[in-house]
Amino acid sequence: MNLPPLSVAPRLDRLRAAFAAAQVDALLVTRLPNIRYLTGFTGSAAMVLVTEQGVTFTTDGRYTEQSGEQLAAAGVEAQIEIGATQADQRDALAAAAAGVARVGLEAHGVTWAQQRDIAGWFGAAELVATDHVVETLRLVKEEAEVARIRAACAIGDAAFAEVRPMLADGPTEQEVALALEWAMRTRGASGNSFDPIVAAGPNAAKPHARPSARRIEPGELVVLDFGCIVDGYCSDMTRTVSVGPPNAASQRLVDVVREAQANGRDAVRAGAAAADVDRACRDIIDSAGLGEYFVHSTGHGVGLEIHEAPRVAKTAGDTLEAGFVVTVEPGVYVPGVGGVRVEDTLVVTYDGADPLTLAPKDLVVA
Amino acid sequence: MNLPPLSVAPRLDRLRAAFAAAQVDALLVTRLPNIRYLTGFTGSAAMVLVTEQGVTFTTDGRYTEQSGEQLAAAGVEAQIEIGATQADQRDALAAAAAGVARVGLEAHGVTWAQQRDIAGWFGAAELVATDHVVETLRLVKEEAEVARIRAACAIGDAAFAEVRPMLADGPTEQEVALALEWAMRTRGASGNSFDPIVAAGPNAAKPHARPSARRIEPGELVVLDFGCIVDGYCSDMTRTVSVGPPNAASQRLVDVVREAQANGRDAVRAGAAAADVDRACRDIIDSAGLGEYFVHSTGHGVGLEIHEAPRVAKTAGDTLEAGFVVTVEPGVYVPGVGGVRVEDTLVVTYDGADPLTLAPKDLVVA
Repeated sequence: MNLPPLSVAPRLDRLRAAFAAAQVDALLVTRLPNIRYLTGFTGSAAMVLVTEQGVTFTTDGRYTEQSGEQLAAAGVEAQIEIGATQADQRDALAAAAAGVARVGLEAHGVTWAQQRDIAGWFGAAELVATDHVVETLRLVKEEAEVARIRAACAIGDAAFAEVRPMLADGPTEQEVALALEWAMRTRGASGNSFDPIVAAGPNAAKPHARPSARRIEPGELVVLDFGCIVDGYCSDMTRTVSVGPPNAASQRLVDVVREAQANGRDAVRAGAAAADVDRACRDIIDSAGLGEYFVHSTGHGVGLEIHEAPRVAKTAGDTLEAGFVVTVEPGVYVPGVGGVRVEDTLVVTYDGADPLTLAPKDLVVA
Repeated sequence: MNLPPLSVAPRLDRLRAAFAAAQVDALLVTRLPNIRYLTGFTGSAAMVLVTEQGVTFTTDGRYTEQSGEQLAAAGVEAQIEIGATQADQRDALAAAAAGVARVGLEAHGVTWAQQRDIAGWFGAAELVATDHVVETLRLVKEEAEVARIRAACAIGDAAFAEVRPMLADGPTEQEVALALEWAMRTRGASGNSFDPIVAAGPNAAKPHARPSARRIEPGELVVLDFGCIVDGYCSDMTRTVSVGPPNAASQRLVDVVREAQANGRDAVRAGAAAADVDRACRDIIDSAGLGEYFVHSTGHGVGLEIHEAPRVAKTAGDTLEAGFVVTVEPGVYVPGVGGVRVEDTLVVTYDGADPLTLAPKDLVVA
């Protein structure tokens, strides 16, 4: 895949510009997606202290080579400290924070136990609970980030096109899930963005069913919800199909959810309240008398994480901006009848949305 | 797979018996592997309050059906509360904790932000930071748990046997990783226990390299570290092979690591200090003058999580007990030469260890 380069290093100054509002003079970054965003490092263990003056990056001996290579490739100038023990890493971070009055900590990115430990690291400095400072920087995607999500979505589309016909052959849910994964991986995805959901018949009434060894039978609705990762960036899509013609009750669920999803998509644009996108979906489902069966939110942001800000929910306070990437995925789940969910991933634009999921929504697999 | 039934419900009374030592009268369990252990629930969101008298299980509308089914199947009697919002779940938990003086919270299982929120839930009750209470119960595996880990290890062995010959055909690291995953999944694994490592030549000098698009060439050492999940339980194994005869420098690394790994395995038995198992490996590698290249710990526990207690490390304070499941996986990583790691998963027994990883350790793939 030929992906445009990410522009990593400037993000550090965008972070520093957010210090004042967060009431900190430095931020200890511990969440791995945020570390990747700020430094390019993809390993499984690191801490990064960003001060006004510099960046101190600590990790352990497994990542000596990798951290040096990845930070250099990203153009990030940092003091890299390899610590065999956390105590070594702590000392390097404490030294780098000397003289800093307020050290921010990602309150949602450290455990309570870690916070109790870290509280002793920085001497007289105040430890400040910060709230999604780096995640907020990540909300608006750069073009090169969208290119990665688009590539991941295209792989999802292609995998679906390949696997869809096999549903007519009576496979198990697990076989279909594995076929989707294989199709995505052989097309260049580095992995799933989450474990695929393939849920047929009664299982489709469970919004987050795990694929089972149950065979998919004629007349059943099948919910397929899956995504993959390209260079760290996720995709997410859901299609519902019917193996052979659906019965009238199933067809009605499908019609309502499709209309709701289209209405939600139409509500996406820069300046729209995320809650209004949710309402656009929910109103259609409520009007059809199915409101009690739409038991989750309408969508979520997608990027380095499969679920990230903004929330697209009834209670969300977010306003969409151009460059946000969100899903729109209403669903209904009726015990004894089945379930339907339809989901696209979209880039918010000034006058609407640029769909990244392009797979057709044809219902019947014959 | 024909797996013996797990005995879930009695674990709740084992947990209650640990309350006094933890100085709590109830425990709010938030870590998902612990929730699975105590209730059989496998979903992605739940909180469980265990008091002396009862169990209150909260989750959201996605899991209404699944939670009822799984708790019933596990024989767990609980008050199940489905809350559309966290506020609903909080109220149910607060009501269940009425009159409790000290509510334990998993300090390593909630974020600092969550703790700051939960601190307001339980009125006058004291919120106590607990330290791996449920994880400690999980250290000694029941026979039915070992059966699952053994099944996962057997799938790993079989996948390795299937994939090993293809290394001679010049595949990329990514192709080998995907072949391992496919081989494990088609044998009944529900997924990887972690993303497989396939690292050849220069990449093998990075202990946690990600599989790359680089082709594996004759004369290279290849480290393959992978595992899968069977009914929630993990396996973990590493083999190092040479594509064709290795050069003398590579052969020496292999000889040293093999001897270290055998020495470590021989040190495993009930009553042994985990640090002594680490030392058994490290002494051999140190004596060979390669100590600086053994940059990680010797091993870790394996169960519902791929990395769980005990640590098998220089600084570990744990003493092994019969029924612990641990890995022994020394390695050396020499920039410019390559890397070697060998790993087995073992059950600790009264007089030694019962190996769950049985794949041969033959070096050369011809």
